[in-house]
Amino acid sequence: MSNDNTVLIVGSVALDSVETPAGRVERALGGAAVYSSVAASFFAPVRLVGVVGEDFPKEHLEFLESRGIDTRGLEVVPDGKTFHWKGAYRDDLNQAETIATELNVFQSFKPKLPEDYRDSQFVFLANIDPDLQLDVLDQVRRPKLTACDTMNFWIAGKKAALLEVLRRVDVAFMNDAEARQLTGESNLNRAANEIHRLGPKYVVVKKGEHGAVMYCDQSMCFTAASYPLFDVVDPTGAGDSFAGGFMGYIARIGEVNETNLRRAVIYGSTLASFDVQDFSLNRFKHLTMKEINGRYEEFRQIVSFEPLQ
Amino acid sequence: MSNDNTVLIVGSVALDSVETPAGRVERALGGAAVYSSVAASFFAPVRLVGVVGEDFPKEHLEFLESRGIDTRGLEVVPDGKTFHWKGAYRDDLNQAETIATELNVFQSFKPKLPEDYRDSQFVFLANIDPDLQLDVLDQVRRPKLTACDTMNFWIAGKKAALLEVLRRVDVAFMNDAEARQLTGESNLNRAANEIHRLGPKYVVVKKGEHGAVMYCDQSMCFTAASYPLFDVVDPTGAGDSFAGGFMGYIARIGEVNETNLRRAVIYGSTLASFDVQDFSLNRFKHLTMKEINGRYEEFRQIVSFEPLQ
Repeated sequence: MSNDNTVLIVGSVALDSVETPAGRVERALGGAAVYSSVAASFFAPVRLVGVVGEDFPKEHLEFLESRGIDTRGLEVVPDGKTFHWKGAYRDDLNQAETIATELNVFQSFKPKLPEDYRDSQFVFLANIDPDLQLDVLDQVRRPKLTACDTMNFWIAGKKAALLEVLRRVDVAFMNDAEARQLTGESNLNRAANEIHRLGPKYVVVKKGEHGAVMYCDQSMCFTAASYPLFDVVDPTGAGDSFAGGFMGYIARIGEVNETNLRRAVIYGSTLASFDVQDFSLNRFKHLTMKEINGRYEEFRQIVSFEPLQ
Repeated sequence: MSNDNTVLIVGSVALDSVETPAGRVERALGGAAVYSSVAASFFAPVRLVGVVGEDFPKEHLEFLESRGIDTRGLEVVPDGKTFHWKGAYRDDLNQAETIATELNVFQSFKPKLPEDYRDSQFVFLANIDPDLQLDVLDQVRRPKLTACDTMNFWIAGKKAALLEVLRRVDVAFMNDAEARQLTGESNLNRAANEIHRLGPKYVVVKKGEHGAVMYCDQSMCFTAASYPLFDVVDPTGAGDSFAGGFMGYIARIGEVNETNLRRAVIYGSTLASFDVQDFSLNRFKHLTMKEINGRYEEFRQIVSFEPLQ
């Protein structure tokens, strides 16, 4: 397989127990690297780097492979137990409440890239310990585009390593609360500008039900609506699906410029909007490119207006 | 003056004492009807209905008249004191904290429309007691478009009258918290849909720093970004300026259809974005149509992306 348009994704592979007002699932497929890999797989070949225990159901592995995801980089720890996250969303679907985090095999994870992964051109460092994100950056050779995501836990506990990651990536994905937490700026435009100055050429702030905003060259250049959903079943993985759709689309097109990045934001928003319509990755199991492109066009319709008369 | 494209606006005229992280003003010009009238005046002639006391500074009256606003409907109560609102915005500029509300002459206000006001074609019922909004609806003859705004206080305390207003207007403006409060729906799309069913053909939900959304015919039809501001000086009047810009533009164009309503939402967003860049109505005092149209085009640029390839 050519390295030209392959997306390398490293991050958590998990079993999630999630409760929302719409219902619950127990030990369903989850994890940042899984959501982003499957979302990216609609556009480009994906290589996954992560770790699971021997308890990781074979059907999940088969699902990933059925999506064209290369799982040679997915380490299986003999006798190990897979990372398990237990959480709940109450009335405010923008806010997850963590009930339990069992790191298990994730605790001693050291990403080791298979040799041919090291030439991957598009690299997405999904949410994991920034020290591990740096490990991966050390192992890849000359990527065309690198991107990272993170979370409040690392901003609070591993800020120095995270700042080093930000110095080295092209794109930083973050949600609005994280952008504010990292910078101490309550104005989101100022916060994004500050992150921009830390290194990334592009800062993409995910705002959940309020859409997403991209900053290029120290100013806000693009804003995407959120798709108007009447029923959000499970918000888990929305941000990861966003990043995966974004990276997959850019890898497919191959050329990193603002026109394509705007489209990538819309494809990211599209994948996120499908993700939340069912638990776990269930919606992706029967999602088609026709549906994706249909929603892409809907995103155009809901923001279109006539120029000045 | 022809009634064809005149906007009739009724609501509060106030003196505001406001503190924000950027500074403070004492007894500055304010009130929902003032913000919306001045915003509308950039597009169409405006007739103002409200009440002030004898203490209302002459310079404010002169400013309104300099904007082409007909103030014959602004009652001056001899020996009365003008409505005074005292509020503060802390770090979260989306949330006003009311320190004092002195209703004064507003307490016994009964809107009385001058005879020639009654044929106004575009009617905006800014935030006041819904019973007074109904009074005004009873006094106008055959308006082409009616719209209302409201606030949490009336939703909690005068719901029946407010529901009657909603049954009788074409457009309901509301912020996201109010839409949720009125309907008990936490999903904003469901909330707006519910309000739609209460009567208004168009529901426009203002989301502050997250832009605005319009619902037509029971589904979300249009979403506008918020303008990326790095310095918000004073959020007071943003929602009123939005509604005023919206109504003024529709009145100027004269034809109520979805194409024009989308543009109206953008002009509303534009006026709101200028309003918050200074205290009171100060930014409007030196605002030009060239600046307004420039920002309108910026709103297009920040949401534009290419169609499917």
